Amino acid sequence: MHLSRYFLPVLREVPKEAEIVSHQMMLRAGMIKQSAAGIYSWLPLGLKVLKKIENIVREEQNRAGAVEILMPTIQSAELWKESKRYEAYGKEMLRITDRHEREMLFGPTAEEVVTTIFRDSVRSYRDLPKNLYNIQWKFRDEVRPRFGVMRGREFLMKDAYSFDLTADGARAAYNRMFVAYLRTFARLGLKSIPMAADTGPIGGDLSHEFIILAETGESQVYCHKDLIEGAIPSADTDFDEDLSPIIKAWTSLYAATDEKHEAERFAKDVPADKQVSARGIEVGHIFFFGTKYSEPMGARVQGPDGQMVTLQMGSYGIGVSRLAGAIIEASHDKDGIVWPVPVAPFEVGLINLKAGDKDTDAAAEGLYDKLQAAGIDVLYDDTDERAGAKFATADLIGLPYQLVVGPKGVKAGEIEIKTRKGGAKETLPIEAGLAKVIEAVKQQRVLV
Amino acid sequence: MHLSRYFLPVLREVPKEAEIVSHQMMLRAGMIKQSAAGIYSWLPLGLKVLKKIENIVREEQNRAGAVEILMPTIQSAELWKESKRYEAYGKEMLRITDRHEREMLFGPTAEEVVTTIFRDSVRSYRDLPKNLYNIQWKFRDEVRPRFGVMRGREFLMKDAYSFDLTADGARAAYNRMFVAYLRTFARLGLKSIPMAADTGPIGGDLSHEFIILAETGESQVYCHKDLIEGAIPSADTDFDEDLSPIIKAWTSLYAATDEKHEAERFAKDVPADKQVSARGIEVGHIFFFGTKYSEPMGARVQGPDGQMVTLQMGSYGIGVSRLAGAIIEASHDKDGIVWPVPVAPFEVGLINLKAGDKDTDAAAEGLYDKLQAAGIDVLYDDTDERAGAKFATADLIGLPYQLVVGPKGVKAGEIEIKTRKGGAKETLPIEAGLAKVIEAVKQQRVLV
Repeated sequence: MHLSRYFLPVLREVPKEAEIVSHQMMLRAGMIKQSAAGIYSWLPLGLKVLKKIENIVREEQNRAGAVEILMPTIQSAELWKESKRYEAYGKEMLRITDRHEREMLFGPTAEEVVTTIFRDSVRSYRDLPKNLYNIQWKFRDEVRPRFGVMRGREFLMKDAYSFDLTADGARAAYNRMFVAYLRTFARLGLKSIPMAADTGPIGGDLSHEFIILAETGESQVYCHKDLIEGAIPSADTDFDEDLSPIIKAWTSLYAATDEKHEAERFAKDVPADKQVSARGIEVGHIFFFGTKYSEPMGARVQGPDGQMVTLQMGSYGIGVSRLAGAIIEASHDKDGIVWPVPVAPFEVGLINLKAGDKDTDAAAEGLYDKLQAAGIDVLYDDTDERAGAKFATADLIGLPYQLVVGPKGVKAGEIEIKTRKGGAKETLPIEAGLAKVIEAVKQQRVLV
Repeated sequence: MHLSRYFLPVLREVPKEAEIVSHQMMLRAGMIKQSAAGIYSWLPLGLKVLKKIENIVREEQNRAGAVEILMPTIQSAELWKESKRYEAYGKEMLRITDRHEREMLFGPTAEEVVTTIFRDSVRSYRDLPKNLYNIQWKFRDEVRPRFGVMRGREFLMKDAYSFDLTADGARAAYNRMFVAYLRTFARLGLKSIPMAADTGPIGGDLSHEFIILAETGESQVYCHKDLIEGAIPSADTDFDEDLSPIIKAWTSLYAATDEKHEAERFAKDVPADKQVSARGIEVGHIFFFGTKYSEPMGARVQGPDGQMVTLQMGSYGIGVSRLAGAIIEASHDKDGIVWPVPVAPFEVGLINLKAGDKDTDAAAEGLYDKLQAAGIDVLYDDTDERAGAKFATADLIGLPYQLVVGPKGVKAGEIEIKTRKGGAKETLPIEAGLAKVIEAVKQQRVLV
């Protein structure tokens, strides 16, 4: 992409309304623009990140055997009356009356919708197990939306729903999502820690939050230090096998959010030098809730013995849009964002120090074509901004590698490569520099 | 994908509530499920089609130089008061009051939102021209939603918005979208005809609808027969060049929707044997409306002479979810859907006639692996349904090629290939059949 043809409205000043660094940097880097309180437009750079996150989430859901559907944003209140959640959900639910005076709502979650889909379509235990997920915009009418996309009102969520004949089957489904989540967050360049958690308005009696540690985290969390470097299940994990050994390894060490924290047990079970007490950001939440929805909504199948069995269900959420902010909280410096390669809006920034100079333009265009041909996602700064502004923008938007082309370098047959993380610079012969950057990008695309 | 692990709830009977063939077939093929009046969930098969359509639309927008953003579904009523459309829009707008009693709405279109993004970010004519598009769910509270996704209330739309300094520049932007639309619909396997149209609530004085002909079309249309086989601009069209010769070729022959139809001119300008009077389905609509939004909303940039200039704008819509239905209306037979390869949910259906038979399973699994390795999107029917039901399902869901593997064929080293369009069958040695299907699929992926 040529920057002159792109839409990248960067801000030089820190916007006053933004309290935390991810919100500030997303606004400054031209990733998002607020449209109403807690409601954002995603500008091109932000949307590219969002799509990359979404796609990694999708790939890991598919790998774990979940099947993608798409449920609508607007739901009928009738469904929520069936599950008895309509009154209970409170003011966070955006309630709507349509032109025929029917009660509707903008879905904050979709247990009811997916349960009716399943109830009306599946008749036999032979069609189980199933896990249906969707990646769709949700709305929660937060009383005080803030922190940009970290606590917005309209947000993109991946929500999966598992259907099983037995509680053991549902537990296996829960384990598959547990493993998928460990892989998902690791692929996004994050260290996530599953923590025992309360179930809140979703209900049920087994639940884990996936938390990443960050100073600006919204909640206090406690865990064993070894969990921060826990082993991530590999890409060839067989999801048809029993995954409980992996779950056991991750849950046998102490980890809990504030609500579930037991100070005495923490002090007793965790050696003092391994006790981590920190702020955390929730990026995923999984629930097993048995028949909480299937029972009142009548979701049953015929079992092997011909008897009707009420389905055992779980649900599994990932905050996709929130992750864009969470990754920045976990990876930035004073100059701007430091994107991990798998979610970087562009993998390489190509900077032309003297746009309009014939030889420099030719060299830069040649590099651009070669990077494109190698399948590298590259943003080419071909504008007539001064060099300092170009460097500042490249640092701010956080592309993992910067390739700098100027008239002097072109004469000498050299380019400069800057690695955003750490800031190391080196000057290399053009072809060697090109090859090095391409190789580095390709190596980091898949982190686990 | 193994069918046993998929979620494909097909219906054997025609649902009573569905009036038109695309609605019937989408329900029967397990593509969609109604959740409320005019509001649908997209089940896995339907979602795959929707994503393929969306992606072709996206590729052609990018090719034409438009840049993708994503605007929220929920908008502030304040914006619509600025443009003076809030009262005028009527009951089709889904109006919402949030917990703080603020007036909000579910966007039926996004001229206001995008104009504020542009107004607040762009200062100089040097940043023009720009075209920002998004593919997002919209809501229009139709008084009588019907025809499935063809006239739903919640629907997926691609909407693009161009910003130019001059009316001539805006006309060039209009032409780029005109060409992009011709290519988009051709790539979807559709023959679209641009027709002079009324501008309705969007406003402006230049507008074309892109119409495909189908018996069930919602509106009466009139055109010169030669337009049905009009030349589609090639993939290497240079969008920086003057495209008006292409537009001229497409607009010099008579074509008009009912509202714009002039019977006398039609009779005079079009030879009798070239007069087409038919039903049409609108799949796209483009508008040039100058300063209709930029003037009241104050969207101006500094021109080359330092004076402030009010932006010239256009907007460009494609009904992405509607297209899923429109393609079926244009391509089906009595047994089901006949998908063009580029939008087929799977390109090949692999049918195992005797799942559980060791040799047949081995042969089918081998073919599945080879098709996957060749990059073919394949649905493998590994269920224990009887053969007749498998064939009926394969025809109903309309996969372009069916590869049939049975115990007899495996012994003879042969497979049967059925081409869904036309129904031709042939029996070939396994490797030759495989190679033939792979080749056929690859050839049809890109139609123009």
